[in-house]
Order: sequence, then C-alpha cells, then structure tokens
Amino acid sequence: MANAYQQMTTEELDNAIDQLQTEADKLKDEHLALDMARGKPSPEQTALSRPMLDLINSSTPLVDGNAIVDNYGTPEGLPSARRLAAEILGVDADNVVVSGSSSLNLMHDLVTNGFTNGVAGNKPFYQQGEVKWLCPAPGYDRHFGVTAHLGIKNVPVPMLEDGPDMDVVQRLVEGDPSVKGIWCVPKYANPTGITYSDEVVRRFASLEPAAPDFRIYWDNAYCVHTFGPEEDHLLNIFDALAEAGKEDLVYEFGSTAKITFPSSGIAFVAASKNDIKEIRKAFQVERVSSEKFSQLAHALFLKDLDGVKAHMAKHAKIVGPRFSLVEQKLTEGLGDLGVATWTHPHGGYFVSFDGPKGSARRIVALMAELGVKLTPAGATWPYGDDPNDTNIRIAPTYPSIEDLGKALDVFVVAVKLVSAKLAKAERA
Amino acid sequence: MANAYQQMTTEELDNAIDQLQTEADKLKDEHLALDMARGKPSPEQTALSRPMLDLINSSTPLVDGNAIVDNYGTPEGLPSARRLAAEILGVDADNVVVSGSSSLNLMHDLVTNGFTNGVAGNKPFYQQGEVKWLCPAPGYDRHFGVTAHLGIKNVPVPMLEDGPDMDVVQRLVEGDPSVKGIWCVPKYANPTGITYSDEVVRRFASLEPAAPDFRIYWDNAYCVHTFGPEEDHLLNIFDALAEAGKEDLVYEFGSTAKITFPSSGIAFVAASKNDIKEIRKAFQVERVSSEKFSQLAHALFLKDLDGVKAHMAKHAKIVGPRFSLVEQKLTEGLGDLGVATWTHPHGGYFVSFDGPKGSARRIVALMAELGVKLTPAGATWPYGDDPNDTNIRIAPTYPSIEDLGKALDVFVVAVKLVSAKLAKAERA
Repeated sequence: MANAYQQMTTEELDNAIDQLQTEADKLKDEHLALDMARGKPSPEQTALSRPMLDLINSSTPLVDGNAIVDNYGTPEGLPSARRLAAEILGVDADNVVVSGSSSLNLMHDLVTNGFTNGVAGNKPFYQQGEVKWLCPAPGYDRHFGVTAHLGIKNVPVPMLEDGPDMDVVQRLVEGDPSVKGIWCVPKYANPTGITYSDEVVRRFASLEPAAPDFRIYWDNAYCVHTFGPEEDHLLNIFDALAEAGKEDLVYEFGSTAKITFPSSGIAFVAASKNDIKEIRKAFQVERVSSEKFSQLAHALFLKDLDGVKAHMAKHAKIVGPRFSLVEQKLTEGLGDLGVATWTHPHGGYFVSFDGPKGSARRIVALMAELGVKLTPAGATWPYGDDPNDTNIRIAPTYPSIEDLGKALDVFVVAVKLVSAKLAKAERA
Repeated sequence: MANAYQQMTTEELDNAIDQLQTEADKLKDEHLALDMARGKPSPEQTALSRPMLDLINSSTPLVDGNAIVDNYGTPEGLPSARRLAAEILGVDADNVVVSGSSSLNLMHDLVTNGFTNGVAGNKPFYQQGEVKWLCPAPGYDRHFGVTAHLGIKNVPVPMLEDGPDMDVVQRLVEGDPSVKGIWCVPKYANPTGITYSDEVVRRFASLEPAAPDFRIYWDNAYCVHTFGPEEDHLLNIFDALAEAGKEDLVYEFGSTAKITFPSSGIAFVAASKNDIKEIRKAFQVERVSSEKFSQLAHALFLKDLDGVKAHMAKHAKIVGPRFSLVEQKLTEGLGDLGVATWTHPHGGYFVSFDGPKGSARRIVALMAELGVKLTPAGATWPYGDDPNDTNIRIAPTYPSIEDLGKALDVFVVAVKLVSAKLAKAERA
C-alpha cells in the first residue's frame, strides 16, 4: 500500500519536503548531541545498585560454603553465585558456571573453543572447512561479530513475530552438517523485543542437528528485564529439552550487566551435564579462578529470584516510561503516514523500527547531521547487510526522558523527510 | 661425583635404607595432610589487602578521569588503573590495557587470537601448518598448557642461571619461521626464582625473528615480589628494545594476583604502539568492558609504585621466613649428601629442586603417600616430560610456618630414601 507521501500530488510532496527540510535545518542549528545508539542503562538505573557496594568491607567473612573468596579456587564460581544464576535461568546450580563479568566474553570463548578444539569430541571447526552459523535477523550485532571474527559464515534467518522462522532453522540445522550454531535472544530479543513462543522453543528443543557439534547459543540476556505492564512468558529451554528427550544441545547464557552494573555484573553459562563438564575443562586452560568479590556481593545483594524481581521492578519504573514515550512519539508523529512499523516490547532494551525500503542508512545519516547518534543502519544484520535497508534499532534507556523526547522528535522529522524524498525519487 | 649413598658399602646402604624406611613409615602413621603444591599466597598475606575492601562503598564517586566506573565503556581499563599498571611494569600508560583479573587469561586470549586471526596482519597460526613455541624449562606449567591446548608444539629450551640459553633461543627464533612465541618469566622465574641478566634481556631485545608474527610473551608476574634480603635487578625489556632500535616484539603481562587477591586482582598487558592497537582491536570483539570496581579499588589502595612497594614489604615479612626455612631445612637435611641442588631465590613463589636422575616422580609419589602434596613431577616441562626426571617445584608460601617445617622434614626423608634406593638399584 502506498504511504502518505506516495499518495500526494507532486506539488503537495514538494511542499512537504520543503517544510520538513526547514524543520530539519532548524534542528541542525540547535547543535544537539543526543544518543539513542546502545542498550545502556541510565545513571538512574545504575544508582539502584549502589547499595551493593556497601555489602563487602574489610570485616566481611570471605568464605562462601566451602569456597574461599579471597584466594585461588572455585573456578566454576562461588556456590552462592551459582545458586543465584541458576535461579535466574531456572536451571540446576550444578549445571552453571559463573565466571567473569561479561556473558559476551563467555560466548566468545565457547565459540572460539569450538573453533580451536572442537565441541563434544569432534574436530575443531578450523579443521572442518567452511563452518556456518545461523543469525536470526534483525539480531544482536556483537553476536554476529564473534562468529564473523573467526571467519565463520553468518547466515541470516528471518525473524518472525514469535521467534526465528523455524522452518528455515530446521531445514538448515538438520540438512547441513556445516551449521554449528545459532545465535538466539529468546526473551525480549535484541532488537525486536519479541519473545519466542512455546512452539518455537519446542521446535528448537526437538531439532535433530546434522552436526553432532551443533549447539544453540541461547543468550537469555533479558530474562528478568520486564518493564511491564505484562511479562512475556518464555518456556524454559531445558524443560523443553527434557520433554523432547534431548540433552547436549543448548548453551544458555545470562548476566547481571543490566540488573546491577554494566561491565561489572556477573556472567554465567548453563548447559547439560556433559556440556558443562566440557566447558569447565576448556575453562581450566584459559581461566584461573574468576573475580569472586563481585560474585559474593551479587549473591548478598540480590539473594534469590525474588530479590532479582524486586530489583527489576525498580528498573521498570525508570525504563517503562521511556518505552512509553517511544510508542507515543512514533504513533503521534508517524502513525497515520504508513511509512513505518515498529515493535512494542514488554521488556528488554530495544525497539526495532522499520522505515520504507532504502531508508535506514539515510535516516541514520540524517540523524547524525541533526546531532542524534543511532546504532549504524544494518548493524542488526550479519555483516551489516540489511537486504532492504529498512531496520533501525532504537535504544531509549540511556538518555534522560527530556533528551529522549527531543531525540524522538528529531527522529520523526528525519523519517518523514527521508520517506518524502524517497517518494519523490520514485517519480523521477 | 658419587653421592653419599653411592659411596656407602652395601651394608651401610642397606642400613640407611632400613632406617629411612622406618622414618617414612612413622611419618605415614601421622596421617599428615600438607600441601606444597601451588604458588598461592597464605591467608596471612591476603589479609594484608582487606583494607582495600573499605575503599569503595555506595557513596564513592564512580568516575575516574573521563571514565564512568559503573557503566559500559573504557574497555582499555580505567585511567587510574592503567597508570598504576604502567608504573608497575615501567612503561607508558598509553601502551597498557587493564582487563579482567587474570593475566593467564590475557595470555591465553592473545595466543588464541594469533591462532584464529593472526598477529600483525599475518595469516592465523592455524593456516600456517606446524607452529612452535619456545618453553624455557623448567618453567610454568600453565603457560605450556595454553599453547599445548591449541596444538602448538612446545619446544623446551634449557634454563641457565641467568635466563634461557640464548644461543638456543636465537638459533630457533632467527632460523625457524614456524617459531611464533616464547614463554618467559623474566624476574624470579617460575620455578627457578632466577632473574634474567641484562645480557639475556638485551639478547631478547635484539632478536631478528624469522617469523614477522613472532612475539616474546614476557610474563612479569613477580616484578615486585622481592622477599629480600636484596632485590634482583631486571633490565626493562622496552628500554632494551629502544636501545636496540626495535618495536613490536614483546607482549608484557602482569597482575596484582599476588599483590592483593589471587583471582580478584587486576591483570594487564603492555606492548608497543602498533601491538597494543592490535590487541585493543582483538579485545573489541571478545571483551565488553571489564569489571571496573576492582580497578578503581586497586588504584585507590595501591596508589602508585611506591604504594605497591610498601605493600610488598609486608608480604616479604610473611614470605621471607618461609623461604629461609626451606633453605635451612634442605641445607641441614641434604647439604652434605651430594644428592640434590636447589635454587636460592630473592623473590617470587618457588624453589626449584633437583634430585638424582630418575628421582622426581618417585619423590613426589612417596610424598603423597606420606601426606604431603607436591606439584606433579615433570609439570615444569612441556608435556610434563622432564627428560632426567630430577625437577621438583617447591611452593612454600601457602602452608603455615609450622606445617611448612613439617612438610620439609618429610621431604628430606623422602629425598634421602629415594636417593638411597636409587643407589641400591644401581648396584643390582
């Protein structure tokens, strides 16, 4: 269906472009410096976790069950931190390793270990010729970066409203032994904010991979990151595996980066009994024992899943209004024009926006001119290659509510101007 | 020269064995459970750094220069932590990256990045056929483990009293383009405790590697770990490089694992301008931004090199007497027998002990029977293969002074009994 600009007479369209250009020029003169680029908690949010910094001092007992906190040992993580991580992911603590502050780093290390040393006793990827990785797109640019860095071929898979297109996933995973993994953010996905349906999760758990060293890299980064009003339901992948009579198929990741402190959270991985044993063996070579004061502080601060949920409710009060503002500004500014669609997440850190075909790069470039930084267009696709050049990731959490409102006003102008110009160009 | 047992008459030797066996049997009945296995600070030592845990609380300003401590960013490390690390290594802070809590993990990641993506624009190691790594031996087992894990061929190089045998090093590095690295612990080496002489350092800095992707992995783990009475002098490798007109040849590593808290220290790497740029680029893919509270706490606690030295003087008071006890017990127990030699370090964490040919595995096994855990014999050689089976690594820091004394008494009996039995076996 033609959008509002396409439906205009040429004169109307020229007038609209002139008017939008004038608005844009005015905005440019304001010399704004705003940022909607990365999924980053705001200072208000990180302040919520400051009390954690009071929980360890020089008189704190530095033992945790049988573990010593202030010396080498316990490379699998402190018992209390493993229990906490297990509650967050809904798995058994025995199947969890807590290590370091970055789940992306854990994912990197496991993909790399597959590349250099193989998964489950199979040949290293580097000895297997071309290796492929499935990348539901739009998706998380840094996931794609990890596999691309190793020369693994990233293969885009369409993202639907209830998760990746499982017909495509199943065909590729079950038909092609060079497919060794798939990147998933199953709840409040980056960037669409959707949550995989039970059926999608069950289809994942029922996959019969052609490759014995295929694993699902299940990055449950936003599992407790609901900002309301309602929480999405995600079926526990390990429950689905048990239901399907499967094991050794999923590495699940999580962290508290967006619960407590980005860069200073705790990160964790969960897997089957066999897989976690292999992971611990790989980590024996590369990791000594991880920073444990942070693990202890997290366990003392968040305590358990209830503690995490109570804490996340505080985040929701800060984050929720920002997402409402995105919805409001985009609806008011663009709702009637038919130029764009966007997602309406209940959690996570992003809104995924699609403008007219061929618009995304232009919109992002124009926004930069107008003083608002956005994630580079295409970043949500493998190799930065968005085939229709429509997708833009909006990250509304970091700016103040005032700055966000201003940035969205600019965004509306930019989308309209680029859409109008594209409509004009179609007529030439 | 024949040792005391070899010089005995058969009757004397049989009597000596009987008597030593009786002593050993008595010790066995004591059911000891002592440990001289790993280089681990004692609880007394880690207690020295507890005041660090009081330096950050909920009201601490979480900024450091231009860096934000409690959010993403500054993947190269906080400015104050980089300055501290730079002072410890004697380099420019611009050439340092502070990341994570483990220098072994940094080393692993850089070797692995060479393996998967290459060094300085050259092909990844995995595309270059057989790749070799020089391993001065005896050396650090976990170094050797990193390269062995990747299938890189570890090549032992003799350790002399002033460092690795540089004739061998030079011949291999300059003659064989498949040699991509060498593991070095240049000060208070693990396990011999020796410090490389100026001449050795200068010869390292003057190497003309056959491979453009060869680097020296300079693990300066014990650079400030003197326990006296005098401090060994180590020529700064980057100064030596400048003198030789070289760049892009050394990755230097360090950490505070044995300054503040093992497993919860800060780790760092220093390199030339080009190399550090490449390291930062590689880390961009695999590391988000590192735990920064620990970095800030370290900078606040240790302040600068003078602060580090003052703190290490406290460690020296705890560690020094343990090393004196090793020297005293070994001299008293074995000094006149001609069965063994050992090192007399001024710093670090180890004494390297050499018994008669073919004795090390037997001594370690007997010690285990007698209730004292030692580092596995051979561990100090690549692939655990000590060609003469003589070397044992003694780690005296962790046990209490009483336990250490007892463990050393047991060790003396074990060395004597194994030596006597070997002398007996020679006659059969």
